[in-house]
Formats: sequence, structure tokens, C-alpha cells
Amino acid sequence: MSNTYDAIVVGGGVIGGAIAYNLAKRGGKVLLLEKDRLASKSSGAAAGMLGAQSEMDGDGPLFQLARKSRAMFPKIAEEIKENSGIDIGLINKGMLKVALTEQEQQEYKRIMAIQNQSGEQADWFTGEELRRKEPALSDAIKGAMYIEKDGQVEADQLTLGFLKSAAASGVVIKEYVEVYDFQLSKGKVEGVVTNQGIFTSENVIVAGGAWSQKLLLETGLQLDTYPVKGECFSVVTHRQMLSTTIFSHGYYLVPKKGGRIVVGATVMPRTFNQKVSLNGISILLEQAKNLMPSIVEAEWERAWAGIRPQTIDGLPYLGEHPAYKGLYIATGHFRNGILLSPITGVVIADLIEGKPTSENLEPFRVDRLVRQLT
Amino acid sequence: MSNTYDAIVVGGGVIGGAIAYNLAKRGGKVLLLEKDRLASKSSGAAAGMLGAQSEMDGDGPLFQLARKSRAMFPKIAEEIKENSGIDIGLINKGMLKVALTEQEQQEYKRIMAIQNQSGEQADWFTGEELRRKEPALSDAIKGAMYIEKDGQVEADQLTLGFLKSAAASGVVIKEYVEVYDFQLSKGKVEGVVTNQGIFTSENVIVAGGAWSQKLLLETGLQLDTYPVKGECFSVVTHRQMLSTTIFSHGYYLVPKKGGRIVVGATVMPRTFNQKVSLNGISILLEQAKNLMPSIVEAEWERAWAGIRPQTIDGLPYLGEHPAYKGLYIATGHFRNGILLSPITGVVIADLIEGKPTSENLEPFRVDRLVRQLT
Amino acid sequence: MSNTYDAIVVGGGVIGGAIAYNLAKRGGKVLLLEKDRLASKSSGAAAGMLGAQSEMDGDGPLFQLARKSRAMFPKIAEEIKENSGIDIGLINKGMLKVALTEQEQQEYKRIMAIQNQSGEQADWFTGEELRRKEPALSDAIKGAMYIEKDGQVEADQLTLGFLKSAAASGVVIKEYVEVYDFQLSKGKVEGVVTNQGIFTSENVIVAGGAWSQKLLLETGLQLDTYPVKGECFSVVTHRQMLSTTIFSHGYYLVPKKGGRIVVGATVMPRTFNQKVSLNGISILLEQAKNLMPSIVEAEWERAWAGIRPQTIDGLPYLGEHPAYKGLYIATGHFRNGILLSPITGVVIADLIEGKPTSENLEPFRVDRLVRQLT
Amino acid sequence: MSNTYDAIVVGGGVIGGAIAYNLAKRGGKVLLLEKDRLASKSSGAAAGMLGAQSEMDGDGPLFQLARKSRAMFPKIAEEIKENSGIDIGLINKGMLKVALTEQEQQEYKRIMAIQNQSGEQADWFTGEELRRKEPALSDAIKGAMYIEKDGQVEADQLTLGFLKSAAASGVVIKEYVEVYDFQLSKGKVEGVVTNQGIFTSENVIVAGGAWSQKLLLETGLQLDTYPVKGECFSVVTHRQMLSTTIFSHGYYLVPKKGGRIVVGATVMPRTFNQKVSLNGISILLEQAKNLMPSIVEAEWERAWAGIRPQTIDGLPYLGEHPAYKGLYIATGHFRNGILLSPITGVVIADLIEGKPTSENLEPFRVDRLVRQLT
Repeated sequence: MSNTYDAIVVGGGVIGGAIAYNLAKRGGKVLLLEKDRLASKSSGAAAGMLGAQSEMDGDGPLFQLARKSRAMFPKIAEEIKENSGIDIGLINKGMLKVALTEQEQQEYKRIMAIQNQSGEQADWFTGEELRRKEPALSDAIKGAMYIEKDGQVEADQLTLGFLKSAAASGVVIKEYVEVYDFQLSKGKVEGVVTNQGIFTSENVIVAGGAWSQKLLLETGLQLDTYPVKGECFSVVTHRQMLSTTIFSHGYYLVPKKGGRIVVGATVMPRTFNQKVSLNGISILLEQAKNLMPSIVEAEWERAWAGIRPQTIDGLPYLGEHPAYKGLYIATGHFRNGILLSPITGVVIADLIEGKPTSENLEPFRVDRLVRQLT
Repeated sequence: MSNTYDAIVVGGGVIGGAIAYNLAKRGGKVLLLEKDRLASKSSGAAAGMLGAQSEMDGDGPLFQLARKSRAMFPKIAEEIKENSGIDIGLINKGMLKVALTEQEQQEYKRIMAIQNQSGEQADWFTGEELRRKEPALSDAIKGAMYIEKDGQVEADQLTLGFLKSAAASGVVIKEYVEVYDFQLSKGKVEGVVTNQGIFTSENVIVAGGAWSQKLLLETGLQLDTYPVKGECFSVVTHRQMLSTTIFSHGYYLVPKKGGRIVVGATVMPRTFNQKVSLNGISILLEQAKNLMPSIVEAEWERAWAGIRPQTIDGLPYLGEHPAYKGLYIATGHFRNGILLSPITGVVIADLIEGKPTSENLEPFRVDRLVRQLT
Repeated sequence: MSNTYDAIVVGGGVIGGAIAYNLAKRGGKVLLLEKDRLASKSSGAAAGMLGAQSEMDGDGPLFQLARKSRAMFPKIAEEIKENSGIDIGLINKGMLKVALTEQEQQEYKRIMAIQNQSGEQADWFTGEELRRKEPALSDAIKGAMYIEKDGQVEADQLTLGFLKSAAASGVVIKEYVEVYDFQLSKGKVEGVVTNQGIFTSENVIVAGGAWSQKLLLETGLQLDTYPVKGECFSVVTHRQMLSTTIFSHGYYLVPKKGGRIVVGATVMPRTFNQKVSLNGISILLEQAKNLMPSIVEAEWERAWAGIRPQTIDGLPYLGEHPAYKGLYIATGHFRNGILLSPITGVVIADLIEGKPTSENLEPFRVDRLVRQLT
Repeated sequence: MSNTYDAIVVGGGVIGGAIAYNLAKRGGKVLLLEKDRLASKSSGAAAGMLGAQSEMDGDGPLFQLARKSRAMFPKIAEEIKENSGIDIGLINKGMLKVALTEQEQQEYKRIMAIQNQSGEQADWFTGEELRRKEPALSDAIKGAMYIEKDGQVEADQLTLGFLKSAAASGVVIKEYVEVYDFQLSKGKVEGVVTNQGIFTSENVIVAGGAWSQKLLLETGLQLDTYPVKGECFSVVTHRQMLSTTIFSHGYYLVPKKGGRIVVGATVMPRTFNQKVSLNGISILLEQAKNLMPSIVEAEWERAWAGIRPQTIDGLPYLGEHPAYKGLYIATGHFRNGILLSPITGVVIADLIEGKPTSENLEPFRVDRLVRQLT
């Protein structure tokens, strides 16, 4: 039947794209459905940091997943360039997690020790060393943890890169197709009901970011996720003001190609509103001036926002639906969706193929926290 | 309770805006919910023709509704300007429904007779008279029916005008709030379930355009509507090439302020895809050149599309839900949403107040065609 | 000859548009040349305040010119609407020049006295009265001078309105035509040399804003003007936060239709760079928060900049070239170009017709300060 | 002196960028002046074809220059990526110059013979072979000359890549700085007069594209160049419709990354007007449908235009001013500016350094055609 597929991916962001791409590489006939335009939500809005070490303290399952995913980027960059012509803008110039107080210095040194034990490199820079490396940084910064391997990409290009590479490998992509409900029978998924009719498959993957929870309500599953708005702005100069990404308390300055700097991101929980508030700009501007006073000389480009899916325990959901075989879930990546997309694509494809996954997915099981609606 | 309202309007387009505005004028505490941005769907995409006579042949209930709504525009324009500062761009320079064949001439003259009997004016222009009035029109046009009263507005400004006037009158507007379901009990509506929690009211109005049908499925009601994409483009010249709107077989050239001309619209049924295809542009360009060859000298501006809700019998749905008291429906306006917005706002407000409506709404009843899902 | 005109206006901004419109009304065959797009420089960037009293202290020739020009707006608004369909967004809700210190209070009360003597109304509002009128204003504001007659318009719409009305009256408009030089002979102008060849006329009007000076260098005239960048940003809310324009030390919050507020403007002299700096946004944000703390809740729209022509003595240049008959100059309007456009259009047209001007133009003579190059 | 430089480049397009980049690599203190924004004219508008063989018949000095420049792209791509992070999107999938008539077939086969003799590869594809390679092409195409080495780049990225790499190497870039005149003395250039004052240097390079001629008039030199507008539009599909660039009679379909296709370009001589006309779109659409009927299924993206400098004999001007030492000219590249930028950068830098140029620049001398104004 023409509307029958080996797998149906719901969601045209970076996670859906990575899964569809991996499935297509393995030979399946795959359909990807996006309710709006491709890459139009948080995947296209992210700053693209690969903060495996800077965003995490260095132990636990998320750290392990993140470091493995980070290591996959050079190969992914090549594949995407080959398949779609898209350059994902992978830059490996490291990250500086800067300390503004004595207390932060202690804290970051403690985390460094944990990470070094885990086999990941992290070095301490004194304030003086720091400003030798990045002369534009504020004198108020006392020191920084330098993480050489925490690179970055262009988030929107990575997302489109996965999706267009998937299309090149035969994935059928449909935009503006909204999934209303699932076809479920005897503990198995059989397809999806959409605004363009029914599509059938024994494998359906929900990768809808912050919009996944609503969809899964139709199956009686209450995921404990909530949306968190993040606002960013960008500036640009002819000559680069910064070469390393600067990270401080969840805010960051990310130097991009051509002299751009992305300043992000606010954390505004429990809203789906994708607008930028003047308050968001005010907060980011304050942070940016504190970290690098001369940033005010740069040219203003634009501001934007994205809605990220957060979970109660901070871990993504990666696994099969507790009640319906063939229905897979990959969401809740919060600030780490870009970073975790390569490994998410692989492990979900493994699950669908029934192969043992290289990673232990127990900590990310869908039923670890969820409430079953009666 | 802070989340309790006298009425909740679902939909931030021209119909939702008109209803919210009318309810607020009558003193209610009203909430309007829009799942995306205000005026971001077909209301913002429409060309804004008030084609009461040009779009209809002149008898039947839709014609009666349309002519009354058309007559309301001068007063609405004033009110919106007063309340929100927005100029809706009402232009009353008439419409020319042009005939390219002998057969069309006969047909239009027949329609003129019907309309003149209905008390509405329509005049016949020979080809020569036509080109005296509009010298840029093609020599291939044999004649035209001239409808003096079919004016036009800026559709996006009318929509924002209703909405901002509603806000000025106290309506609470929330964007990016998606309604998932209704709270229903004992044959009555009690509120809505959204991505921002529950809002309660004994009056809920579904004015979600092409997206209404899906929402109403949650109540077991299958409206016989379907989405129809319409594509447009615009061009501009310093000096106006045209003063009257030209209408031919569903295609039109609408002269706007400042020398713009909107060329519309294609009819692509059963898709929610809001993208413009090159095919759409090709069709519109062909039509435009046939009607007015010199249009090619104008400057290109941009192209866009909207998704309009069509019904099986071509009439909108205006009325109460057959199974749930307090749940009202106003959708299915297809190409006439802008034109019908003023009267729709009034009659729905009348229904909610329990007042006899000035118009006979029997032909627009929700249960005239619909199928009740078991 | 087809390239011969009664008058040639150089500049497609608000001043050029007003002059061309007035000339065309009087029956001339007029050509308007713009080197870029219409309304693409400071005329399209202005906030549109008509600050005859708020921007000036109340005596002197500029104040007299400004008050007369301000009085012309209601009629201009009607004419433009009639001729081009464009609504210039004239709003007459007054201006509040707020005082944050005791010293400012004294200063503004002194200015009020002068203005009241000049026959213009200005009233004092205490802090309490002020916040009753505009509850969102900061408690730090001690009082304000209220100027009822200082209204505002949409600057880009006024500019396009003049230009499109001029086109409707027969003015030939050419964009992307740059004037390189003038054709001069025996103390008279005979035409202009452009990138599209030569156009001849015995009357040429230079209305090129900050770009006028360079052009006039070709005639041996060194106007003492310099460019001043002004940066703005805008925010929007559903319900209006403000109804009166707020003015403080050259910064302002201008409430626009549909709940927009324009925040402006920085003063960055001696640059033609039209980019917005992060510094500009930082300054404006600080000012806006000081005046109205709750503005941070509004949605961010966008930022932009314009380059305004300032003169050494602060008065515009309005008159004939000291050395060449028929060559007229209208520039140097700095922050008052929008306000002064109606009267500028009339007096320049009067000069060209050889009629006595209603205003005394002596203080605005071109040769009052200028240096003649040898 | 702070305003003194080793060289001043006038023009922030691809030619100016390439020259500044080469000069900076060789150690000079370089200033680049752009009167508008970087890459805002034809360099940013080009489709980016490297048509050394497809645009030329295969003998003569331009062909020799072009083939050498084409060969430089792989290395340039690496350098720009390294210096600025920018990927110039170099794609080497060849070009198909298609024949729609028997006569064209003969003509292209003749050109192939010449090129093969010149040592460049070109192969003949029959209609059948062609459609095996590119199934979407029209059945009306009878055959094609396949040029494997005629690749393509993203023109705007190449331009920004040169400029940002130049900035990274120390070039000072100033936007919105317009050069009014040159400082000339005793047959030598000494600097430039701009809207930001005087900058001095013994080497000034005019690389202002179509705007160069006007500037050089100030030196009494009348270059025989004229502006030619080219209009383009782009469409996009998820899966690539085309892999090779298609070229026919000056029109082309260029497959870009991510499924985009650029359709270009019209040839509208003697205008600086950068607007797209509906006529331009109509022409391009017709051509595109003739070459590849299914292109109408693609999504519309946008339309744009650029103004290219053409010369009377079709060769660029590359060399020193006939009357002023130190004043260099690099313009007149017409449709080949992107292709010729790498070699232009090198030979102009060679000239300035007084090194023998690798290429014979005699055919491109500035005084070969020009008229000296008296």
C-alpha cells in the first residue's frame, strides 16, 4: 500500500531528522511528518553548543551519553556534507566555563577533577591566562575551566542536514501534516491519524520536542515534561572578537563563522510562546556586558526564541512506549538536543531493529516517571 | 476564579476577532486563545475583497448574509480606527466581473438581473466602456458586470483591528495557546483544556478556520469541511495601473493603496501546506497577463498562501453544537471570511446572549450535514 | 524633449516627496530622482513625532515654522488618503515632556511660559496627575509638561503618501537613479547628470537629506551639515501600555497603532553607517526602563537606524543656491524632517513659482553659514 | 598616521574582497571601503556558477584566465574555511550546456572540439544519456555538452569569506563609507576623499563593480562599461530534483545544497535599478519550465536582482590607470565575477607589489578602449 511504511517519524526537528536518517541508512522505507515547517522550532533556534562537559558535571548516564554523541560529530559532518551539500559548521575551538567568584572557582575545579577521572580533559586557566587567550573578556573573571572538546555547530544547518540527507536516502518528508492520534490495537501501534489521512506502520517514533507530551496523551501516557522558552540574540563584527565559547551560569557567548556571536539563553519555563520579550533581551544584554564589555561595539543582528522540552529529572526519554509495542519516544532533551542528536538517532534505530543498543538505555526509559492515565 | 470567563473564543483570525470584539462591547469578560500568532493564517493572507455580489449569483441565504455584512464595513472601519488606531483600508471603488467569452456575457447578464431584482445594483459595461474606465485591461475582454458596492479592505489590518479593538475593550488575548480538548458535562460545555492548563467558561466559540474540524472531533462531531489552499502574489508600481478590482473565474487583481496590486488566488483543495508552489505562481501569472498584459512591467513584491475552510454545500457553519449547549461554531467561510466577519461577530454574540438573531441562521446550522461519530 | 521637465526633485524622502507633491498640484511636469529606493533612509526610520513644542523651547524662527507645519497635518492626511489610499496614521493624543529632577521641572516650566506667550498651549502635570493619565510611568518622574497639540504620524507612510500622491498627480518617479552632477551655465542650473543620462530643467531641488552636502560640493558650495545616526527599536503588546508620547532628554516612547511602542533615538554624529549597534540598544533599553519599568513585559519587534542631516546652527537650509539661479536646497531638518515636511513642500514650491512665501525664509537662507569653495 | 595605509581597496564585493585578502596575506596594512553593506550588490546576488567552459567558447585570453581561476577554488575554499569559518559551498558536479535544436548541437560540438584542444575536457551526451543522468529534464532537449570541471559556489558566502578572511588577516573594513574623489598629484594617486574624511595611500584599487565607472570619471577616465541587471529566483524541494547545473542560452538552473535550485538570469542592460520585475519572473519561469517541466512542483522561495558591470568588448579591466600611478582598476567582470575573483585577487596584488604577473594582462589593460576626458 502506498501509505504503508517501515517506520513513521513524527517531528521534523533535529531528533526526528537524526532518527529518520539512521533508519534510511539501514534500508527502511521511512515517512517523516512535521506539523509546521522543518527546523522551525527549537532545533532551528539553538546556539549549537556541544557542551558535553560544560553543561554536565561529569558523572551519570547523561554525561556518558553526551560524550559519546559529541565524538560522533566529525563523521556526521562529513556524511551530511556528502549527502546534502550542507556544511554543519562544526568548530572545535573549545569552551571556557568562567568563574566570577571564589566559590565558583572551587566548584568548577571539583567538576574538573570528576571529569578528568572520567577520562575527559578539562584544564584550569587563571584570569591572566584566560585574557591572554581571549583578550576581550572582563577583568572581573577570576579563572575558567577550559574544555577543549566541547565544540559547536550551526544548529539549523545540522537539523536541515539530517533531514535533507534523510530525503536523499529515500525518506518521504511531509510538512504541515499534523498527527492527531495513533492507531493502536492489541498493545501494538499500527499507524497514525493525521490531517492528511491515515498512514500505517508498525513502527512509529514520536520526536516532537515540547509538543510530544500532548500527542502521547492520546495513548493514555502522561510524560512529565514541560516546555521551557529560551531567548537568544546575535551580533556581528568584521573581525572576530572571540574564538572560544564562553559559558557562565547557563548563559553563553558563542562565536560563529564570519564574526557572529550568539548570546543566549534565557530560561522561561511552562510557556509555548515563541516570542522574544524585551525582558529577555535585557537579561541577555546584562550578562553579555558582564562577560565581555566591548561586545556593545558589535552590530545588532536579530533576536529569536525556541521552546525546549524539559523533564522532571533532567534526563531525556528514549525508549518504547510502556503499553504499545512499536511506539517509540525520543524527547525531553532540553538544552542538549543538538548535542545528543547523533547518538539518539543511532540508539532509536537500534531499538527498532531489535538490536542490542550500544548504550544502556535503562536510565532513559519512558516509564521511569510517567503516570499512566486511567 | 481568575481562569473563569464569560466566554472563550478559540481562534485569533478575523472571525474569532470579530466575535471577541462584539462580546466585549456587550460587557463580557472574554478570553481569546490562538495556537500560533494572531492573524497568521488565512485571515492575514486574504486579498480582502468584499465580493457580496461578485462571488455569488444573487439569491439564497449566503447572498443575503453577505450583502448585510458588506453594509456594515463603513461603521466597523470607524470603530476599529477609534479603538486601536488601525486603518482597515476600506476602499469603495467597485468590482468588475469581466467576460472573456460570449457565453460568460450571457451568464453575467443573467446574474445581474437576479441581483437587480434583489435590490442590489449591477451594471453592464461594454468592452469599450470598460477600457475607458480601466485602460490597462486586455482587448480580449468583451464586457463586464460592474458592481459598485463590492469594495475591499486590507485583510490583515481588519483582522488585527478586530483583535486589538477587542483587547482595548478588555478581551484577554493569549497567543501560542493550543486547545487540546473541551470540558464537557451533561450536554454542556464547561471549559477548554489547553497547553497552558484549563480555562473555564459556559460559552466557548470555535472559530479556528480550517483547524476547527479537528478540534470538534474531540466532541464526537464530524464537520464536513476541508482545507483549501489559496496562493497570491503582489506587485507594485509608482502610479496606479488599476482602480477597480478585476474578477474573472475566481481569479482577481485587487488594486491596493500605494500602487500595489494583489493577484490571487489559486484553489488547491485538501492540504494544510502553507507554502507557495512555483505552479501556483505560474497559474496566477498566466491569468494576470491575460487580464492586463502590462502588469509585467510592475515590480515583484512577494508571494504567500493561506488555508481556507470549505464546506460541502458551500455555506459556513454558524450556530450551536448539536450535542453541547454553550459550545458555538463559526467556521467554513471559505473565500468569504473577510466579507462575513462583521455579521458573524454580531450573530454569534446574539446567539450567546440568547437574543433573537437579526438573520435567519437555519441554513447555517451546524447539524445540517454533519455526521455524529458514534 | 522627453527628458525635459518643469522641475527636477533630487531625493525620494519626505522632503522630496512633499516638494514634488506641491509642485504637481500646481500643474508642473515634475521628475523625482532617488538614488536608492523610496523612503529607504531617515524618512522611513523616523518615529514620526510632531514635536513642534516638545523639541523646541518656543521662540525663534524654527519654532514658528514648526507650529505652522504641525497645523497642516490634518489636511495633508486627508489629501494623501484621497490621492493614494495611504493612511498616514495621524494621532493627536499629545506629548508629555517628563521631568526627572527638580532642575528639569524649573526648566520646563520656563519653556511653558514662553510657549504660552507665543499662543501655544502647554500644561503642567504633577507626578500624581501624570500617573493617573499614564499609570505605567515610573514613580521617579516628578512631573511633566503636557503638550496637547504635538501629535504624531507613521513616518514611512507619510513619506510614501507624499510620493505616491505625487505620482498620482503626474510626477515621474525614478528609483536607483543617482545624480552625479549638475548642468550649470551662466549662473543658472540647466539640468542634472545621472547614471541614466542627462535630464534637463530650469528648476532643480536638492532634497537629499544627509547626502545633499556631497552633491552640492559639485557646485562649489560647502554646506555646514553633518550626518547624525539615530537608532530605534520597537515593542508591542496586545493592549496599549501608553496613550501619550513620552519625551525625556531627546529620548522618547511613541505609542503607535495596534499596541506598538517605538523607543528612540540615539544621537551618533558624523557617521553614515546605518547599522544598529548593541550599544545603541543598550542605551535605549536603559532609558525606556527608567521611564516605564513595565515595558520589559512587551514583545520585542525589531531595531533600525537612520541618518539625519544636522546643521551647525540647528536650522534647516531652505532656499536658492547663492550662485546658481533655479537651484534650490531643502535639507538640514535633523530631527524635524517629518514635522517640517508640509511647510517645506509649500515654501519651496512658492520660491520656484516666484511667489512671496508665507513664511520669512531669511533665517534659513542657504548662504547664512556656508563656505564657497574657491 | 592612523589614516595612512599600504593599500586602499574601494568596493566590498567579491573582487574587492579577493584583492584585500591577497594583499593582507602578503603583509600589507590594508583598508577596504564599501559605500553600502558588504556583499550587498551583484556579488551577493550571483548564482555562483564557475562557468569557465560553459560561458566561453574556449579560446582567447578570457578563457585562459577563467580556467586558471577555476582551478584555484579548492584551495581558496580551504583557506576561507580556515580563516573565517565560512564554507563557500564548492560543488564539483559539472555543468550541462543543453541543446534544444540541431543547430545548437552543431555549435556546441564545435566549441567542444576547441576546448578539448585547449586541454580542457568536454563530453557529448545524447538526449538519452542526458535523461539517464538527469531524469527531470525535458524530452525536448536533444543533447548536451557536459563539462565536468565547471563547478559552482555560494556566491554570497565566497564574497563574505574573502572579506572576513581579509579582516582576520588585519584588513580594516569600513561599511557605508563612500569615496567621493581621489587625491591625485603629479601623475600619482595619494589617497581618497570620502564621506568620512581623507584616507591616504600610494595604492588605491577601484573594485566597485558597476559603480566603478562613475568614480573613475573623477580622474578624467571614461571606462566603456555599462550596468546590466540580472534577475533570479529560487525554489526548493526536499529531495534534489537535479544534480548538475543546466545551462541554456544564458539561462541556468543551478542545484544548490539542501534541495534548492537557483533559476537565472535575465539580461537587462543600462539600468541600476535593483528591483525584480514581473516580466523577469515571467521570462525565467518560461525558460525553467522548458528545461525541466516538473520544476513547477517545487516550493517558491524568493526573487532578487543584481547589477553587473559589462564592457564593450566583453573583457574585464584589470590594470593600472593610464594617467595615475598607483591607481588600479579591477572591474567589468560581467557574469564572471565570482569565477574570476581568485585570479583577480592574485594578479592585482602582483601588480601592486611590482611583481611580474603570472598571467598576460595585456588584453585587459585599462587603456585598450577607454576615452580620456579632456
